[in-house]
Amino acid sequence: MTQPIRIGIVGYGNLGKGAELAIGQNPDMELTAVFSRRKLKETHSGVPAVSMDDIASYRGQIDVMLLCGGSATDLVEQGPQVAALFNTVDSFDTHAKIPEYFVCMDQVAKQAGTVATISVGWDPGLFSLNRLLAGAVLPQGRDYTFWGKGVSQGHSDALRHIPGVKNAKQYTIPRDSVIAAVRNGQQPASTPAESHIRDCYVVAEPGADLEALEAQIKTMPHYFADYETHVTFLSEAELEAQHAGIPHGGVVMRSGKTSPEVGHVVEFRLKLDSNPEFTSSVLVAYARATHRLVQSKASGAYTVFDIPYALISPKSGEELRRDLL
Amino acid sequence: MTQPIRIGIVGYGNLGKGAELAIGQNPDMELTAVFSRRKLKETHSGVPAVSMDDIASYRGQIDVMLLCGGSATDLVEQGPQVAALFNTVDSFDTHAKIPEYFVCMDQVAKQAGTVATISVGWDPGLFSLNRLLAGAVLPQGRDYTFWGKGVSQGHSDALRHIPGVKNAKQYTIPRDSVIAAVRNGQQPASTPAESHIRDCYVVAEPGADLEALEAQIKTMPHYFADYETHVTFLSEAELEAQHAGIPHGGVVMRSGKTSPEVGHVVEFRLKLDSNPEFTSSVLVAYARATHRLVQSKASGAYTVFDIPYALISPKSGEELRRDLL
Repeated sequence: MTQPIRIGIVGYGNLGKGAELAIGQNPDMELTAVFSRRKLKETHSGVPAVSMDDIASYRGQIDVMLLCGGSATDLVEQGPQVAALFNTVDSFDTHAKIPEYFVCMDQVAKQAGTVATISVGWDPGLFSLNRLLAGAVLPQGRDYTFWGKGVSQGHSDALRHIPGVKNAKQYTIPRDSVIAAVRNGQQPASTPAESHIRDCYVVAEPGADLEALEAQIKTMPHYFADYETHVTFLSEAELEAQHAGIPHGGVVMRSGKTSPEVGHVVEFRLKLDSNPEFTSSVLVAYARATHRLVQSKASGAYTVFDIPYALISPKSGEELRRDLL
Repeated sequence: MTQPIRIGIVGYGNLGKGAELAIGQNPDMELTAVFSRRKLKETHSGVPAVSMDDIASYRGQIDVMLLCGGSATDLVEQGPQVAALFNTVDSFDTHAKIPEYFVCMDQVAKQAGTVATISVGWDPGLFSLNRLLAGAVLPQGRDYTFWGKGVSQGHSDALRHIPGVKNAKQYTIPRDSVIAAVRNGQQPASTPAESHIRDCYVVAEPGADLEALEAQIKTMPHYFADYETHVTFLSEAELEAQHAGIPHGGVVMRSGKTSPEVGHVVEFRLKLDSNPEFTSSVLVAYARATHRLVQSKASGAYTVFDIPYALISPKSGEELRRDLL
């Protein structure tokens, strides 16, 4: 048995706590410490909770740092800082800024001799991989992405910023009829707004005009105006009791033809009880790949596109060929 | 624009003809010649049809050979022969023999300085990739594979070998109820026999005892005895009119948990109007990857597990990060 891969977690929100659970499921890894800007009392697993200010003192003791910062804003700053000291895996997900983030992390990591694996998770991440795969195999076709049923953090935040809203949660729900049409080989020209329903659970401030509030939500540009939107008002206690989870998931499909009458549909689907627990499980699998890249003398930034699947599995090449091929 | 990748096809059955179509969909490739042991008059695309005896004379003119031999028996012989002369991609699919085939191809290719990408297609191939991915992300879980609805060549052959059977086609059909249970997070302990139905369309020899024939089929060990099996007798004309296609597909699923009450389901699904046209499209995408491996000075045997997805796409790293991540 080789030495376990020594992992550090940066950020101890939902994603960091999920990573802690996931590391516990992988016998070839061990969690060394959790780093946070906040003062943490303790961790679930009992490993040390360390201030970010002391992160550099862990050089040589941690093989891969999982950057579980709460938002893309954290990562833009934290990513390059930590990648200058450690090998990293992050879930940077601001699509429009991925190219420049890659360039930045690549420079820092090459200079430091580290590997920085960026934008890992399910979208970006596993969904991206399946878009690439299906597009390469079926060059003549059309891509579809359906999100949900799941909680959209951005849309829930948008609801909470409306005056008169005390708390809220928004579920994105794909239309089964559109998914079924794609699966049957049709290639509908549906926009995201036509393919999804937005289901809002809203706790109003006492005395708020519910009718006006509902109208305001349904006409909110960019977020709800183009969508079939449902609004349900409920109490804070009901929201907590019935909508505590963070489920998510979705479907990536490609419908293509290899000759005029011959069509194919490639579909990748996730159904997740907890978005952060699944996302962090993906981060942990790519921590293994990152460690192996380092062992093969690689440095610089990587994405899921650049990493062979063999590197994310604890099994050897022989075992993979025998058991899974 | 760089030079197109020059492709050769070895074997001109359904798979080889599918590869010819697929190459036509990829502007960065061109088909140079088709090689066959049979005497071919011409090819659909008009490229030369060449005898296998003359294949060595094409060295230096072809970047990657697609081995589209009709059966695993062909490939065991043809694979090493061609890999000693050319870079190859094949769809070797005798699961139990993949490990020794890999070792053989690896030796031959390393000695010749070629790259041999083996066992490409959808199972083995894309299904294998998704098994690896889902298993690495969800270490605590259970795998499921459902095949169909599709034509099983092996079972159709088995039917045709029964005395009294003139012609036959067998469809494997997964049970939707089992798929739905897995998708809902249950982990049923269903065997393949419990998860699939076998649907047989049989043309009997004139005067055959249909009742006895049906009983013989349904009790045939290994093939049908353990399954719910349906037998429909029909005429040769009806078989040709109604069952000419070679559809296939299936679903690979993994149901796993990241904590006691938190489950996730990862699902990869294919629905294919033509098994050989899709399989050959996968071969063609991996021909691109094989060519790039050669350009990076690699040699030896590779499987889909060893090849980053970036290599199968015609897009550059920058384009992939910008458009698909």
